[in-house]
Amino acid sequence: MRDVYVAGIAMTRFAKQPDRTLKDLTAEAVSGALKDAGRTTSDVQAAYVGNAVAGTITGQEMVLGQVGLRPLGIGEIPIINVENACASASTAFHLAWQAIASGVHDAVLAVGVEKMTHPDKARSFAAIGGSVDMDTVPPDLPAGRSFLMDLYAASALDYMGRSGATVEDFARVVVKNQHNGGLNPYAQYGARVTIRDVLDARLIVHPFTLPMCSPISDGAGAALLVSADLRPDGIPPVRVLASTVRSAPADGSASVTSLAGAAAYEMAGIGPDDVACVEVHDAAASAELVLCEQLGLAPDGGVALIRSGDTELGGRIPVNPSGGLLARGHPIGATGLGQIVEIVLQLRGGAGPRQVPDAHLGMTQNSGAWHDKDNLVSVVHIFTKE
Amino acid sequence: MRDVYVAGIAMTRFAKQPDRTLKDLTAEAVSGALKDAGRTTSDVQAAYVGNAVAGTITGQEMVLGQVGLRPLGIGEIPIINVENACASASTAFHLAWQAIASGVHDAVLAVGVEKMTHPDKARSFAAIGGSVDMDTVPPDLPAGRSFLMDLYAASALDYMGRSGATVEDFARVVVKNQHNGGLNPYAQYGARVTIRDVLDARLIVHPFTLPMCSPISDGAGAALLVSADLRPDGIPPVRVLASTVRSAPADGSASVTSLAGAAAYEMAGIGPDDVACVEVHDAAASAELVLCEQLGLAPDGGVALIRSGDTELGGRIPVNPSGGLLARGHPIGATGLGQIVEIVLQLRGGAGPRQVPDAHLGMTQNSGAWHDKDNLVSVVHIFTKE
Repeated sequence: MRDVYVAGIAMTRFAKQPDRTLKDLTAEAVSGALKDAGRTTSDVQAAYVGNAVAGTITGQEMVLGQVGLRPLGIGEIPIINVENACASASTAFHLAWQAIASGVHDAVLAVGVEKMTHPDKARSFAAIGGSVDMDTVPPDLPAGRSFLMDLYAASALDYMGRSGATVEDFARVVVKNQHNGGLNPYAQYGARVTIRDVLDARLIVHPFTLPMCSPISDGAGAALLVSADLRPDGIPPVRVLASTVRSAPADGSASVTSLAGAAAYEMAGIGPDDVACVEVHDAAASAELVLCEQLGLAPDGGVALIRSGDTELGGRIPVNPSGGLLARGHPIGATGLGQIVEIVLQLRGGAGPRQVPDAHLGMTQNSGAWHDKDNLVSVVHIFTKE
Repeated sequence: MRDVYVAGIAMTRFAKQPDRTLKDLTAEAVSGALKDAGRTTSDVQAAYVGNAVAGTITGQEMVLGQVGLRPLGIGEIPIINVENACASASTAFHLAWQAIASGVHDAVLAVGVEKMTHPDKARSFAAIGGSVDMDTVPPDLPAGRSFLMDLYAASALDYMGRSGATVEDFARVVVKNQHNGGLNPYAQYGARVTIRDVLDARLIVHPFTLPMCSPISDGAGAALLVSADLRPDGIPPVRVLASTVRSAPADGSASVTSLAGAAAYEMAGIGPDDVACVEVHDAAASAELVLCEQLGLAPDGGVALIRSGDTELGGRIPVNPSGGLLARGHPIGATGLGQIVEIVLQLRGGAGPRQVPDAHLGMTQNSGAWHDKDNLVSVVHIFTKE
C-alpha cells in the first residue's frame, strides 16, 4: 500500500443553518479543501461523498454528490455516494484513502454533508431513527426525541451499573467539551458551564439532560487526499497511518470500536500511548467514556479518565479538542470529516487557542448506527505529521 | 491491477413482491451467490451494498447493508452502503472489483437490493424522482407517473427529431425485450406482444405507452468477486476485463455513457465489435437505441440497429437478452446486479433458452439519475470467459 497524505481540509461551521442548502454547504467545504491544498477541481480524479439523511429530510436522495459537485464544475470522474449512518463521512474518507493507497488514483476528494434541520422537528428525529434496524423500532415512539438517544440512554445506564459512573461524570464530559467548543470557530456551541448547570438542564431521557445529547446540525466537511508525489508545498504534511472500517460482529462477541481500534493500531504500528489527541464519537456524553475504554485510552476505566482531567486541553491526552459532537455539533453525514479536520489542524499546529502542544500523532473514531447494545459501524483513522 | 473473477452470482426474481422484506431479498441473493461460488459467509472480507430508495420507501436508510447481512452471520468486516441512483448496484460491484484489483481484499461481496412497491403508489413515484437535482423538479408534478419518465420522454422526442426514430421503433424494442423476458425465470414480465399491442397500450407520457416504461419492482442481486487464487473449481471462470464509473461532464460536452464506454473499451483492450452480448439500461424503450449508439454498437444508428434484427436473440449482437429493465424489471438499486448476473450466465453458457451462442465476451451498462438531457451517472463493465 502507498503512503496517503491529507493535502487539504475545510469545513463549514456546524450549526442549525436552515437557510443553507446542501449544495451551498458542499461548495464551501469542497472549495475550501481544494484551496487549502493549492489545487483546483481539475486535479480531482474521483470523489466519495458521505451523507445520511438527505433523502428523508430534503428529498434529495441517491445522487447528492453529483448534484452538489456539478455546480463547482466537477464532472466526468467517478462520484460515489456513501452512506454509513453517522459514520458516512469517515467511510467516504476511508474509500478515498483506499483508492490512493492501492494505486487506483492520486488525488481523491472525500466529502461529508448533512442538512438535519427541518421546519417539522419530528422529521429530523425520525430521520435519525433510520440508523437502527427498523424492525427493532417500537411502534409507539416517544415524541420530541430520537429513538437512537433512547438506545444510548439504555447503554449509559448499563455502563453506570458496571463502571460506577455517575451523572456527574457525564456532566464532566459536557463541561470539558463545551469549553473546547468555545475555542473552536467551527463549533455549534461552546460555553462555560458547570456540572450543576448540566445536571439542572431539561431531562431528555434518563440519565441524559439536554446538553448530554448531541444536537441537530447542518454542515459539511471535505478533504483532498493525495499520493506522495502530489504532497503540497508549504503545508506541514499530514500522513494517514491507518484507516479501518468495521461492522459489529453478528454474534455480539466484541465491541465494534475495539475491533476497529485494534486493527488501526496494528496497521499504524503504534499503541494507544502513542496518541497525542483524539476525536471520539460522543453522540451522548456517556459514549465518550465507553469509547475511550474500547480504544485502550483508559487503562483505569473511563470514569477515572474523565475525573483525572487527563482528557482536558492541557491534559495527558486531550479528547475531543474540537468540542466533540456535543459542542462542535453533529450533522451526522458530515461529522466524520469534522473530526478529521480537527485532528489535521492539530497536527499542523493550526488549532489556535485549543492547540494541543506537540501533537505529532492523532486519531479519530466515528461511530454509526446501533444494534442491541453497541454501534453497528465504527471507523478509526490515525494520522501523523512528518 | 490484479485480475478479478466473478466466483458466484445470484438474484431473486424481479417482480412486485409487496410481502417480501429488504432482509429477505438480501438473504436470498447473498446466500445464492455464496453457494454458487462454493464459499461461506466467513470467506467474505468486505461487502459493498447498493440501494437507492429504501430510506424513502421503507424508512430503512443509512445502514441497509449491516441490517441485511447481520442475520446471515456477516459482521466485523467493512460493510459499505453505496448509492448512485439506478446505478447503485453496479457502483457497488465496481467498488468490490476495485478492492480486489488493487490488492486490498481477496473476496468481496457486491449486493444490490430494492423494494419499490408501496401501498401508496405516489410514494414509489416520488422516490424515483429523487434521482434528479431536486432544484429542477417543477412544483406541479403530474400525478401517477415518475418525473424521471417525463425527462426520458423529452429526450425520446429529441432523439426522434434527429434520428428519424418512430414510435414503432420504440415498440420494436419492447417486443424484443418482452420476448426475451418470457425466456427468463427471473424476469418480472415476458409476453409475446406485437408492435400494434405496444402502440395500443395506455399512453403514459408522449411518446411512451405503458410497456415502453420500465416497471416498479422489488428484488435483489449479489455477486462474490475474488482474486485469481480463489477462483472456484467447477464453474467456468468469468473475469472482469473492465469496470468504469463516470459522471456527466459539468459542461455537458459529452454523453456520460460514451465516456464510460470508451474508458471501458480502453481498459479491456477491445472494441465494440468484440462484444457478443450486452445489457443496457433501457429505463425507457428509446434509451436502448440511444445507449447502443453511445456505446459504439450501432455504427448506422440505433434505428437501423433495431430494424435490422441484429439485437434479437440469434442476431449479430443480442441486446438485453434478459429482457432488460422493460421486461426483467427495474428494482432500481438492484438492477445493475441483475444485468451482471445475466451476462455472467451467458458467458458460462447457463442462460437456458435465451443463451447467446459462443458468448465469449459480454458487457453491461447501467445508467443513473438525470440532468439536462443526459444521465448523471453511467457504469460499464466488460466480462470475458477464460
